Amino acid sequence: MSEEALASGREGRRGREARRTARQQRSALSVPFITRNLPVTNVLTAEGLAIIEHNAETILEEIGIEFRDYPRAIQLLRSAGCDVKGERVRFPKGLARQLIASAPTDYIQHARNPERSVHVGGDDIVFAPVYGSPFVHDIDKGRRYGTMEDFENFVKLSYASPFMHHSGGTVCEPVDLPVNKRHLEMVYAHMRWSDKPFMGSVTHPDRALDTVRLCELLFGAEFVRENTVCTSLINANSPLVWDGTMLGAADVYAQHNQATIITPFILSGAMSPVTVAGTLSQVLAEVLAGVSFVQLVKRGAPVIFGTFVSTLSMQSGAPTFGTPEAALAIYGAGQLARRCGLPFRTGGSLCASKIPDAQAAYESAQTLVPTIHAGANFVLHAAGWMEGGLASSYEKFVMDCDQLGMMHVLARGVDISDNGQAMEAFREVPPGGHFLGCAHTQANFETAFYRSSVADNNSVEQWTAEGGLDAPRRANALWKKMLAEYQPPAIDPGVDEALRDYIERRKAAMPDATH
Amino acid sequence: MSEEALASGREGRRGREARRTARQQRSALSVPFITRNLPVTNVLTAEGLAIIEHNAETILEEIGIEFRDYPRAIQLLRSAGCDVKGERVRFPKGLARQLIASAPTDYIQHARNPERSVHVGGDDIVFAPVYGSPFVHDIDKGRRYGTMEDFENFVKLSYASPFMHHSGGTVCEPVDLPVNKRHLEMVYAHMRWSDKPFMGSVTHPDRALDTVRLCELLFGAEFVRENTVCTSLINANSPLVWDGTMLGAADVYAQHNQATIITPFILSGAMSPVTVAGTLSQVLAEVLAGVSFVQLVKRGAPVIFGTFVSTLSMQSGAPTFGTPEAALAIYGAGQLARRCGLPFRTGGSLCASKIPDAQAAYESAQTLVPTIHAGANFVLHAAGWMEGGLASSYEKFVMDCDQLGMMHVLARGVDISDNGQAMEAFREVPPGGHFLGCAHTQANFETAFYRSSVADNNSVEQWTAEGGLDAPRRANALWKKMLAEYQPPAIDPGVDEALRDYIERRKAAMPDATH
Repeated sequence: MSEEALASGREGRRGREARRTARQQRSALSVPFITRNLPVTNVLTAEGLAIIEHNAETILEEIGIEFRDYPRAIQLLRSAGCDVKGERVRFPKGLARQLIASAPTDYIQHARNPERSVHVGGDDIVFAPVYGSPFVHDIDKGRRYGTMEDFENFVKLSYASPFMHHSGGTVCEPVDLPVNKRHLEMVYAHMRWSDKPFMGSVTHPDRALDTVRLCELLFGAEFVRENTVCTSLINANSPLVWDGTMLGAADVYAQHNQATIITPFILSGAMSPVTVAGTLSQVLAEVLAGVSFVQLVKRGAPVIFGTFVSTLSMQSGAPTFGTPEAALAIYGAGQLARRCGLPFRTGGSLCASKIPDAQAAYESAQTLVPTIHAGANFVLHAAGWMEGGLASSYEKFVMDCDQLGMMHVLARGVDISDNGQAMEAFREVPPGGHFLGCAHTQANFETAFYRSSVADNNSVEQWTAEGGLDAPRRANALWKKMLAEYQPPAIDPGVDEALRDYIERRKAAMPDATH
Repeated sequence: MSEEALASGREGRRGREARRTARQQRSALSVPFITRNLPVTNVLTAEGLAIIEHNAETILEEIGIEFRDYPRAIQLLRSAGCDVKGERVRFPKGLARQLIASAPTDYIQHARNPERSVHVGGDDIVFAPVYGSPFVHDIDKGRRYGTMEDFENFVKLSYASPFMHHSGGTVCEPVDLPVNKRHLEMVYAHMRWSDKPFMGSVTHPDRALDTVRLCELLFGAEFVRENTVCTSLINANSPLVWDGTMLGAADVYAQHNQATIITPFILSGAMSPVTVAGTLSQVLAEVLAGVSFVQLVKRGAPVIFGTFVSTLSMQSGAPTFGTPEAALAIYGAGQLARRCGLPFRTGGSLCASKIPDAQAAYESAQTLVPTIHAGANFVLHAAGWMEGGLASSYEKFVMDCDQLGMMHVLARGVDISDNGQAMEAFREVPPGGHFLGCAHTQANFETAFYRSSVADNNSVEQWTAEGGLDAPRRANALWKKMLAEYQPPAIDPGVDEALRDYIERRKAAMPDATH
């Protein structure tokens, strides 16, 4: 095709049509979760898988797992046939696999807006935002401690993004609130300022119970008894330790049929051996032990096979992200999760960079793409993660969400329908012709390609004329626009009042505390 | 593990040891090419593949391919059984597949340093730098036309990078040289300032012949008769056109047993239909036609199944990169290439961004990772590509090479040897302990994890104290250091003289020209 044809294509389609296209694309791609229509990528052979499973069983039997400061776990595991010495619990070979068999292969997490409910497991993918950062960052004000206002902003941004399926949990730490009361306002913010599914508090069993009680007010107690309405993050204290706080929270959620993500949190080289195969054996051992406990609390309670694996700089001791070893662990863990018959959580858009620069983007994409191909079902930290998880970045949140939009298209795979085959286009356009104006292109014009909200594809002259902005500067304008245009979802005033009443009564009953 | 343990790990391993580690890693990963130990990712089912192959054959038979301004191609194809009307060549179903059967499944491209020779095909991956940019860019001087000095700089950077296997071709356009003499200095620069394999000129059959003659001087005429010493890029004029210039260059190379990359160059939506399946049918048809011609010139001449597919913004008509549709096309094309039994070229580190920012990095990684998983054998534009191929970027070259280093590790897959399993580490480190100091970690310390040359993983405090540089600023220091430390590989003075003599005689024989 000629330059002229390209130029005429540019002119003819600007303006009104372009805006309509963007709207239609958003609505076409805005789904409550992704259904992957791509095969998973495996990195372990059958032999490799068998070796890792054998080694995990060996670790469980010979070395064992410590269940610390939670006698109830010790008691349950002993009764189930484990060999217990103090807090060290050893699993006879095969026992953990038997115990986890009662966990469901998948589950639905209900949102207060039924159209936002997510299916967790199978070929489906759910994106949730950054979790746990004490700091926030934007390019105007730089890095600072997170506040409740920031927390609400990230809830609103997740609500506003068509490519974020879940409202997440601790989208940043609201350090301006007392530690022991924070969870109430965090859970309320998810319930009030979004209608997407969310995560509960895990920093104390009582706070987990507060989450359940608030859910009962929002969804109705009977509904919560029968259904999963929150998915919460239970991290191991790797290597090979589950501690009392996390076990206590998992206990509460399991009793109430609420989902937990049982996650070894590993920086390989420090919390696991320096090899991928060794790390995967440990991941499997820790997950088997954690899920066994949950199933002993309540058989059939929904649970996700979690994995958070990255690497350590052996030179500086600093955590590193987007590394090839982490990618291999992501793929391998997916294979293990599928062998266990459990939904799989991994990955996200992880990076070590302190700013939303090229390092941040390379590392995030090098995590996100493997996450998709590894068959992840629940993707925490899918947007906004920066500085090794120390900061939630406003600009990176927007840039990452754009990448998530692309993953919606990638995961759909190749359309081989008659329209996808486009043979009529070939019959219309002669060799050396161009396809812009042909009937098939016109018919598919509006949703043909994913349209990035962040990328600038203009000529260098036009880009320069428009200020020569880098990607974070464009993202900066986007998140401000999203917050400015944010409209809260409606809520039943009686329900809202009941939530606020519960929260205020609970707050009044406890002094401020810093832990 | 405790913060103290992490901190002591940091202190103990700085300095001398860290430098030794970096050296050892570089030498461990510096290989003439990668052998992939990962399964490929497929996006097309058997049914999808069959449909696309059927459609490609239909295009070849019903619509046909134009072979323009090259009567010899018309003649060869008519003799082989094609239906020819004017320049339009139609292939009876199955004919092209028969004609390409003589192409080898793989080949060795020899470098003047035998240790740098590359195997193209099978499970092997060869990285080559950016190709064809009229402009260069660095963050000091911005964007400007490329010169011969820039060209030599990119040759030197490719030579210096342990992760770049190939010296490439037109690493930038040296626009300060007359168009009709440029190729001589470009080929000479690859021969003289590097000892890695390289690409030849394709802008005129005479220039291809100059490349062959220079190769005969460098390698010896007899060696060149028997061996492949250059791989050159032959682009289609998509849709469905091969033009005389490219056919003429391909003809010369095939006659001399030199390799060509037969590449549909497609911005989907303009040069192909807006769908992935439609585009893949066209890719296959164009490759089948181009490779048929090469095999008719010389049966057994080495040839690569090339694919350059990206998308077009349907709103502005601008080319877009790192898009999910392009990734799907990369995966699908890999499946087609394997079915044809040909080495596969695709992908690279492509982006539309005008600067080495987050957009550039997201887009590049979203191209490079699929490139690896799709089973690419030859990866042009693996580093340095910016602004949709209009600019070769110094900083991006360095950042991309770092990503290529990571791909070396990823492609190796998971080590499941006894050492990889690391069971001794589990037996040494108790639950809650840390692995930094254990014997297994110590034994694997030096090559455990890929060590990025560009990423900054330090604390925000340390990073700030060191200037708070973003990734491009760090890359800027790196390429300057690489050029400052560059040492040319030795060359036989007699050979060098013969090369220069040939070049000067050829230059003297022609007036300067601008095309």
